[in-house]
Amino acid sequence: MTSIATESVVQLERDGEIAIVRLNRPDRLNAFTLEVRDRIIEVFDECDADDTIRAIVLTGTGRAFCAGADLAKGGDTFVTEDDPDSGEAPPDSGGQASLRIYRSTKPVIAAINGPAAGVGVTMTLPADIRIASDTAKFGFVFTRRGLVPEACSTWFLPRIVGISTAVEWAVGGKMVSAAEALERGLVREVVPADEVLPRAIEVARELATGTSPVSVALTRQLMWRMLGADSPEVAHRAESIAIHVRGTSADVREGVAAFLDKRQPDFPQSVSDGLPDLFR
Amino acid sequence: MTSIATESVVQLERDGEIAIVRLNRPDRLNAFTLEVRDRIIEVFDECDADDTIRAIVLTGTGRAFCAGADLAKGGDTFVTEDDPDSGEAPPDSGGQASLRIYRSTKPVIAAINGPAAGVGVTMTLPADIRIASDTAKFGFVFTRRGLVPEACSTWFLPRIVGISTAVEWAVGGKMVSAAEALERGLVREVVPADEVLPRAIEVARELATGTSPVSVALTRQLMWRMLGADSPEVAHRAESIAIHVRGTSADVREGVAAFLDKRQPDFPQSVSDGLPDLFR
Amino acid sequence: MTSIATESVVQLERDGEIAIVRLNRPDRLNAFTLEVRDRIIEVFDECDADDTIRAIVLTGTGRAFCAGADLAKGGDTFVTEDDPDSGEAPPDSGGQASLRIYRSTKPVIAAINGPAAGVGVTMTLPADIRIASDTAKFGFVFTRRGLVPEACSTWFLPRIVGISTAVEWAVGGKMVSAAEALERGLVREVVPADEVLPRAIEVARELATGTSPVSVALTRQLMWRMLGADSPEVAHRAESIAIHVRGTSADVREGVAAFLDKRQPDFPQSVSDGLPDLFR
Repeated sequence: MTSIATESVVQLERDGEIAIVRLNRPDRLNAFTLEVRDRIIEVFDECDADDTIRAIVLTGTGRAFCAGADLAKGGDTFVTEDDPDSGEAPPDSGGQASLRIYRSTKPVIAAINGPAAGVGVTMTLPADIRIASDTAKFGFVFTRRGLVPEACSTWFLPRIVGISTAVEWAVGGKMVSAAEALERGLVREVVPADEVLPRAIEVARELATGTSPVSVALTRQLMWRMLGADSPEVAHRAESIAIHVRGTSADVREGVAAFLDKRQPDFPQSVSDGLPDLFR
Repeated sequence: MTSIATESVVQLERDGEIAIVRLNRPDRLNAFTLEVRDRIIEVFDECDADDTIRAIVLTGTGRAFCAGADLAKGGDTFVTEDDPDSGEAPPDSGGQASLRIYRSTKPVIAAINGPAAGVGVTMTLPADIRIASDTAKFGFVFTRRGLVPEACSTWFLPRIVGISTAVEWAVGGKMVSAAEALERGLVREVVPADEVLPRAIEVARELATGTSPVSVALTRQLMWRMLGADSPEVAHRAESIAIHVRGTSADVREGVAAFLDKRQPDFPQSVSDGLPDLFR
Repeated sequence: MTSIATESVVQLERDGEIAIVRLNRPDRLNAFTLEVRDRIIEVFDECDADDTIRAIVLTGTGRAFCAGADLAKGGDTFVTEDDPDSGEAPPDSGGQASLRIYRSTKPVIAAINGPAAGVGVTMTLPADIRIASDTAKFGFVFTRRGLVPEACSTWFLPRIVGISTAVEWAVGGKMVSAAEALERGLVREVVPADEVLPRAIEVARELATGTSPVSVALTRQLMWRMLGADSPEVAHRAESIAIHVRGTSADVREGVAAFLDKRQPDFPQSVSDGLPDLFR
């Protein structure tokens, strides 16, 4: 693994075609700050722009994944100013990070290497798959601090674990074990701590092998967008555009030829060349 | 437990900070009538207005939870008049009860103490958690009477048990055992009949302990509303308002201080003081 | 079982009140073509119009269910012309088949008798229940061909198996075993190959026995439509119309009378007489 950024609150590393995005404030249990938000957005932008990156693993340095918002400012931690332009509430910083992850053109696997609380949990919800260490626990602590769940988690969480579990955990401010997280579907696998990152990289690589990068980007975008769409007719319109555009593409010619030749495809198209707009 | 209402078709009782809403027509197996609907709405209004109530348990008196619509009028039971104002269909009475429960500012646990049929099942779907007696069974009987599922169950049920099970049960007019209800996710736990109410009170109390009442109300509202929202961006807007308003609140100062002091918080704010509108 | 159509790429057969729609190009592993699409639409129209048909089983002839798009044209298989009217992308043919199945007034059980790939999987997603042979496997092969999932599957799949599994399978271009399909909720049952069709017919018959055909049609329509609706209030409006119209119906008189008499109902109303519009 090679680090390709200087020391930063969020490191971008590489393992071949897999990017490793690492929350990197281990002395603060990787607590979330505005700088972390900015850096997450920046790093995901870099991943999107780099065609040699096929999938992203999100993890943390040290024994914790992320302790939530950094409480260095104590009771003032969550004080925010009105947005100077609109005079209204400024955007929730956790939500800005989550939306950036949601919009990724590469699949995202969260490798939750230890405890995750507050935004430390909720920022993982737009990941496609969560793999947890048996040392992980998940702190839905918001109502115990006088807050509410954020980072778009009120949209993501009931879709991942069902409304009943989502309300139980979030209303109750529950601390959830790795075992319960597995049972209720929050995470896909629980493994020993030292296997979390290797396993996440393995799963990421499976998604990348033999698949068209452009098809992967469009498919990820379609699935997440249609999760909120109000009818299959909406999907029909978006998919009709996608199938029409892809039908004449160099990727499809290669994909079908490789299948008929019983060989691995070598897709010529790149995400950085631009993606068709399916949602006009 | 103390009864705080005179004998009524729906009793409101108390166990400390937990309200017990009890369908109370045991000679009719707690069958649903317009009077029951009115009284459910009234009792939930009382619970919302009373800051000493932190969570609600919905149960029934006697051996049944609710036998469904009272069929005393036989084949005329479901005849309704056009709404005099609009000239259109009047609102479904089960739906009026369900929507009131859905809008509760306190968490709702259904303690299903015995058989539940028709609206007796569907009115429990906006509860956050369902706990059932091993004597319970669930009668999705609508298509066997020439009716359709109501009480907003066509929205709630597929979100709770998945579309395939929802169609199977509702189209097939199935009688579902407690065991199958547990397996498919309709209920969270099945316990012996005499443990249903104590267990529901215990679960309700867990949601209330150490949590901010205002945060609980906002979180419950956000989760259920966002379950229907068409994108995470909608949640981002609502949560941004919530985090901004809550960030400067006395509750958050207390919540963070208590956490840093490692003591239980004592939240100063009340639901009856009013909640911010997150959905403008 | 009686065949009621001449030899065709999609056969319509009967087993009493159950229609069997059979993909019937066994020499091409029942691969999908525009002719298959046309014939699926035609056959579902026939089923809707025929009141003696109460439920539909969708299956395939031979050892496969459906191998996906027929690749006889190789790399040109997915080339489509702009729609001559709009100048835009023409409708995806898989989506046209899926939407027809989605709109069925009769419940649909997919009896997946063997391998299903591409549109061979995705066309089964609007079925209410999927029952698979232990010889079945499910090929979400789109990204391996340079394509994207279609047939409205980007809307259906995350609602059936959850967003995490949907992305994993579809982005990864996964081949999914019958066992994994069962575990993740794609199929309801896995049975030996020779029991798939009899079991599907049995399940279909259970949905049809003792239920009102009009209630079944309305309930199926309500559940699927409300799966995409943005709030329970939308369901409340549609259900209020349904309950009002049904409340005075001959079916309800018969359904309640039969229940009170403890006999099987004999519902007088027919789907072909027309259904009320619940979604105005």
